[in-house]
Amino acid sequence: MIIGIDIGGANTKAASSDGKFTFSRYLPLWKGADLAGTLNDIKRCAGRIDAVGVTITGELADCFSSKKEGIIYISNIVKSVFKDAVFFGSDGNFYGDACDHKLFSASNWSASALCVGLVHKNVIFIDIGSTTTDLIPIMDGIPIAGNSDMQRLAKNELIYSGALRTNLAALMSHVHINGMNVRTSSELFAITGDVYVLLDSISPEDYTCDAPDCGEKNKNGAMLRVARVICCDLEEITVDDVLDIASQVHNKQVSILKEAIEDLSQRHGLNKAVICGLGAFLAKDALQELCMPFTAIGQVYGDEISRVFPAYAVAKLLESKRSEGNLI
Amino acid sequence: MIIGIDIGGANTKAASSDGKFTFSRYLPLWKGADLAGTLNDIKRCAGRIDAVGVTITGELADCFSSKKEGIIYISNIVKSVFKDAVFFGSDGNFYGDACDHKLFSASNWSASALCVGLVHKNVIFIDIGSTTTDLIPIMDGIPIAGNSDMQRLAKNELIYSGALRTNLAALMSHVHINGMNVRTSSELFAITGDVYVLLDSISPEDYTCDAPDCGEKNKNGAMLRVARVICCDLEEITVDDVLDIASQVHNKQVSILKEAIEDLSQRHGLNKAVICGLGAFLAKDALQELCMPFTAIGQVYGDEISRVFPAYAVAKLLESKRSEGNLI
Repeated sequence: MIIGIDIGGANTKAASSDGKFTFSRYLPLWKGADLAGTLNDIKRCAGRIDAVGVTITGELADCFSSKKEGIIYISNIVKSVFKDAVFFGSDGNFYGDACDHKLFSASNWSASALCVGLVHKNVIFIDIGSTTTDLIPIMDGIPIAGNSDMQRLAKNELIYSGALRTNLAALMSHVHINGMNVRTSSELFAITGDVYVLLDSISPEDYTCDAPDCGEKNKNGAMLRVARVICCDLEEITVDDVLDIASQVHNKQVSILKEAIEDLSQRHGLNKAVICGLGAFLAKDALQELCMPFTAIGQVYGDEISRVFPAYAVAKLLESKRSEGNLI
Repeated sequence: MIIGIDIGGANTKAASSDGKFTFSRYLPLWKGADLAGTLNDIKRCAGRIDAVGVTITGELADCFSSKKEGIIYISNIVKSVFKDAVFFGSDGNFYGDACDHKLFSASNWSASALCVGLVHKNVIFIDIGSTTTDLIPIMDGIPIAGNSDMQRLAKNELIYSGALRTNLAALMSHVHINGMNVRTSSELFAITGDVYVLLDSISPEDYTCDAPDCGEKNKNGAMLRVARVICCDLEEITVDDVLDIASQVHNKQVSILKEAIEDLSQRHGLNKAVICGLGAFLAKDALQELCMPFTAIGQVYGDEISRVFPAYAVAKLLESKRSEGNLI
């Protein structure tokens, strides 16, 4: 069995190249979460493992004072659990160690997009996770996104918001309610997970991260949290008001996505998309409004693979390199 | 000695009516901070206390499922330490208990503005704290702001951002850097305190709240945090880039303030301001750009009083009620 592991700042995910094994756990590295324990759990759950490929994005977590420190920390823990693990570099190769940290920083989108490019030659690949959104132009099968997070943030290839963990205050400076244009609070009172539980886009079980108030992750808890964004409790505004705010957040996220997709489509002449991730429903909404056709990875491989796609992609790429005898 | 105490969600402050005693402590209620212990510290530090007046804004903290619950929790702790304490209501009176929670929610601005209105009859009163900004129109000595936080958020009378604790992601969707328009991360990576330490507007000692990464509260720590807002470390961008981002945040806060002040000035025909708070420097910048004259409480009473002005105002108002024999 060949396993891919995607270690992000907030989540660690794994999948086997045959797609039969998937694993996803909320694992906030900045809170000192037990990465070694989780990797051991993956080892135990997966069964017989022939090879492990790893992609890392967790180096940005603010427990690290530099990305280099993050890559070294994470790769050392990986090696302590899987001594033969190889690391996926943004150049498309696998390496036995992760010394050159720039090659390994934020490499997970690169694995996914390379894998998608094997089948879909000219598309925009869109992966919307709990925290971020990758939009990767693929031309003639080759991903052509920027080299660093900053460059991608400048080119509509990375939007740092997602379907679960995004602070509503980062999306909405104001909300409209009862004919008023109300400023929002800048606290971490509510997140997109609250909005999408309220709008039935995700289930309470999908709300895998912490709730900002450590409260219930169901509609009741989400209502309290969303009301707080305009400094209210549920004595002061109605359930309909809260749902209206949730709709406005959804519209805003879709609108940001649409702008980014249109920009990439025009710059690169791309008119099709491939979508995946927990937040694929947002990509679907944006693409339908833009009348752009798309393939949903969830429909092809199932939702489990869609939600851990970078891990699956790393496993597939490693399998292919091994069969070619082409491993560095 | 007559003491005023202002219990917010993030800070608890106190002052005596003679201005000789002031106290301020970062005390995040949502983290279960020890309010009783802090009130006992105030009791001990203040010395002989004849009367205690209390104003509450901490009921919005997300450890409470309603404002009522927050007011009851806080007022019970107050009573356990100061059994004769009285609570300042937004109607301008003091009460022996805080049963009617709506009268006591977010009442601190009301105390400050009433106190200012005794001297300055027609002004915009602006208090910029660590977390929020109150802009209260005072006409003929009477504060005329909205009844609830939500109403004030809708009328430019409350801007939920301040000089220390505000997530940069809530202020900036993009920053300009090296000719690029770069999206920001929605994480809680950096706060306004980082920006104003970098710009020398506040000292590291003024940075009383937690740093988002629990790191150093000096310029080195602040640089790391601000760089993370565009997913960078200090290998990827320069010190000048970071300072440029800090300037953009400052400009944005001043610009939001200017818009709000202009709106209130036009709606109410007010052309003067009175300013206070840790973030008074922001109000000063905005008012100077608007060429609107102002009185700085810090210049009249000193910076210590300016930073705990609602507590001082409550003490002054209580002193006045007692001398009139006019206490409910």
